[in-house]
Amino acid sequence: MAKAEELQGLRDEVEQVSLEIVRLLGKRMELVARIAEAKKKLGEPLVDFEVERRVRSRLSDEARKLGISEELVNKITTLMLQESVKLQEAGEKPKRQVSHFDIFRRARELEAEGKRVVRLEVGEPDLGAPGEVAGATAEAVKQGRSRYSDAKGIAELRKKLAEYLSNKYNTEVKAENLILTPGGRFAIYLTMRTTLNMGDEIIIIDPSWPMYKNCAEFLGVRPVVVNTSVENGWLPNADEVAEKITQATRAIVLNYPCNPTGKVIDRRTFRKLLDIARENNLYVISDEVYADYSFSEYPPSVLEYDDANFIRVSSFSKSWGMTGYRVGYVTASRELVEKMAKINGMLITCVPEFIQYGCLKALELEETVRRYAEIMKKRMEAAVNTLSKIPATVHKPEGGMYVFPRINVDGLDSIDFAFDLLEKKHVALAPGTVFGDYSNYIRISLGASEEDIRRGIELIGEYLQENVKT
Amino acid sequence: MAKAEELQGLRDEVEQVSLEIVRLLGKRMELVARIAEAKKKLGEPLVDFEVERRVRSRLSDEARKLGISEELVNKITTLMLQESVKLQEAGEKPKRQVSHFDIFRRARELEAEGKRVVRLEVGEPDLGAPGEVAGATAEAVKQGRSRYSDAKGIAELRKKLAEYLSNKYNTEVKAENLILTPGGRFAIYLTMRTTLNMGDEIIIIDPSWPMYKNCAEFLGVRPVVVNTSVENGWLPNADEVAEKITQATRAIVLNYPCNPTGKVIDRRTFRKLLDIARENNLYVISDEVYADYSFSEYPPSVLEYDDANFIRVSSFSKSWGMTGYRVGYVTASRELVEKMAKINGMLITCVPEFIQYGCLKALELEETVRRYAEIMKKRMEAAVNTLSKIPATVHKPEGGMYVFPRINVDGLDSIDFAFDLLEKKHVALAPGTVFGDYSNYIRISLGASEEDIRRGIELIGEYLQENVKT
Repeated sequence: MAKAEELQGLRDEVEQVSLEIVRLLGKRMELVARIAEAKKKLGEPLVDFEVERRVRSRLSDEARKLGISEELVNKITTLMLQESVKLQEAGEKPKRQVSHFDIFRRARELEAEGKRVVRLEVGEPDLGAPGEVAGATAEAVKQGRSRYSDAKGIAELRKKLAEYLSNKYNTEVKAENLILTPGGRFAIYLTMRTTLNMGDEIIIIDPSWPMYKNCAEFLGVRPVVVNTSVENGWLPNADEVAEKITQATRAIVLNYPCNPTGKVIDRRTFRKLLDIARENNLYVISDEVYADYSFSEYPPSVLEYDDANFIRVSSFSKSWGMTGYRVGYVTASRELVEKMAKINGMLITCVPEFIQYGCLKALELEETVRRYAEIMKKRMEAAVNTLSKIPATVHKPEGGMYVFPRINVDGLDSIDFAFDLLEKKHVALAPGTVFGDYSNYIRISLGASEEDIRRGIELIGEYLQENVKT
Repeated sequence: MAKAEELQGLRDEVEQVSLEIVRLLGKRMELVARIAEAKKKLGEPLVDFEVERRVRSRLSDEARKLGISEELVNKITTLMLQESVKLQEAGEKPKRQVSHFDIFRRARELEAEGKRVVRLEVGEPDLGAPGEVAGATAEAVKQGRSRYSDAKGIAELRKKLAEYLSNKYNTEVKAENLILTPGGRFAIYLTMRTTLNMGDEIIIIDPSWPMYKNCAEFLGVRPVVVNTSVENGWLPNADEVAEKITQATRAIVLNYPCNPTGKVIDRRTFRKLLDIARENNLYVISDEVYADYSFSEYPPSVLEYDDANFIRVSSFSKSWGMTGYRVGYVTASRELVEKMAKINGMLITCVPEFIQYGCLKALELEETVRRYAEIMKKRMEAAVNTLSKIPATVHKPEGGMYVFPRINVDGLDSIDFAFDLLEKKHVALAPGTVFGDYSNYIRISLGASEEDIRRGIELIGEYLQENVKT
């Protein structure tokens, strides 16, 4: 009976402590409301990363000191910070959220009305998958290769892909370092989900494909941006990257050839960034999905380095024009691949088996890859040439499938511009704002014919003459 | 400047309060450890739902009194309770984590050694996709239907699926209520991701497909289990469900026909559960993936009710044997579908376009669905008949593709049993423990031939005679 009383006593104490926690939460929220007031009067932004970062790190230290779960404290901290932001934002007007899908949707509407639209907005090559890939996939479907398979991908494909990459990069990739995913996006997701935790920070070099920031935010991870400029040929400054690293930084995303700029980083700078990552014990998430669309020497790859924290993301979408097949893959340490396989297995079981047979065939078609790269190069040249005739500044891409010119009009709002251009000239393209703080820029996709690209850019020129004083 | 100082002062206060919260968390964890000790001495169970509920309600009252977000307090309470359970379990011997994939893997190894293994462990029908579906998919691949498509699925398929469901359930499902996903698992994930938040609770009726708990935990959501028993024909007790609802409960998962029990809930009890959900403003996630495998009347469906909080999950995997095609879908309110589409688009872009043409064809093949259900019924009968000859108790399934007998051996450890049976008799099946606290049970899949099912169960009988005193 004494034991039972002791138990009751302890429970009462727990309750008192818990109530006290809630009261302190109340007090905290009160203070937060007053801070919001004070910030408003000072004209300071609502979210201050520096402050949040400090709070996180102090609370985390305290948790460690007390020997309680840092994970628990991190989660509770996140909930408190989220609530604070919510409280402070009540009353603010929402930010304008636009993606190139909004342009895509409007372009489709215009087409449905019978208009001829020059489509330069989507990052999808028009080249399509080679007939051999379609044939192999169709054959596998008919043979009934449509059972559950290994979460990492069928053994045959992983083995062949490992050999393919090993040859291509003169390195040793093993099957155990590979996992097949439903598209490159999911490859990014699995990578971030297995390397980052809520409250972590990730460095992203802008302008960048929106997926990196979106996916990070989806996971409660904070994107920290390093900007690059057309004046510096879109080259990231390694010192600026180093400056953004904090206790909370866990990873850096690299994407060369770059979407949207077409920049291919030089090996020296690439190396420098990898060294910085190493020194700070960061993961490097290298999205090399455009690697095969390179117009001069072969772009640098993390595969050239043997480091368990370097992760390469790629896909079959661009190299073989297999966008709608939805197959991406990650090259990473065996340990990380196993972690990813658990999530892949839980969320999607596997990439459809018959599609993997299509991928097997693709790996034999190096000629297609070269041919597609040649086409992209010609289109890029055409785009850059035509851009020289309109008021635009462009860095000539060394790879990728986009050009990212600045439109030389003061104070251009790329979103308004893109929508108005679409209405008036029936040219669809992606506003620069989608990729970061680049309101004067537009992204032109090379996924269309050379003729369309020329015509589209000429129409931009016409639009500017008619509508804007340059 | 005074304002800036005031701001700094407030920030310091917030930090102090936050630190105090962490310290109290530390104190709480200390007390919890002592409670665990006391409970152990008294032989009390670690999780006491009554106590938890009292804690919750006190804290929630306090939040209301203080005018702070009850939701925030509920979430933090859940995290604290979860941590408490984890702490208390730390001294216990760790639960064995086994999935039927471990059995699957070992079975494959034995097969690779040349052994003939009776495979009754995997939830995959051996029937395969109909030739027409394979044909339509192959044709679509060859026609180059492999471009990015709508994140929700191609318009044609959503329209036809809406008609199909509307007819089947005598209701009105619109295309806007549907989203196609890469498999039923991803349909569950999208549903949970868009309806639940970290710190929420979800009610799951055991025995259950492990995905529900795994996915909930993956999202930081706490699964709260309601058990059912073979003695009560696996019927959930509505009162027991109601008792588990707390302020943190957001959803309940229903899965009829049930994996693993084959139970089909009667319409009255189904209705009762939906009413409880409605009264408590809970989402109902109804996984009706086995709906077409029903052996008597058609199973009840949330589609029969018009409620924005009722969500139906299904797939093409079972009804048409299209497992490896990886296509699932969710029927939900337009608002939820839009939320899911955002995530689908971000993580996978879309289900491969050509596969969706295979699905379009499948919807014309009602005859296949009926034939497959007939086959499952015959297999189920064979399984139940054969089980009557060994020391087992089984509820005769009204649907689904499994039987879930209790092996009448005192203190059976279903994991040891499953592995030993596989080694000695080369019969692969899923241990009951995988599906909840059902150590005396095994799950036999009807995805194999009638002959294999009979033979497998006979071999279980032989094993029991040779190895166990029953």
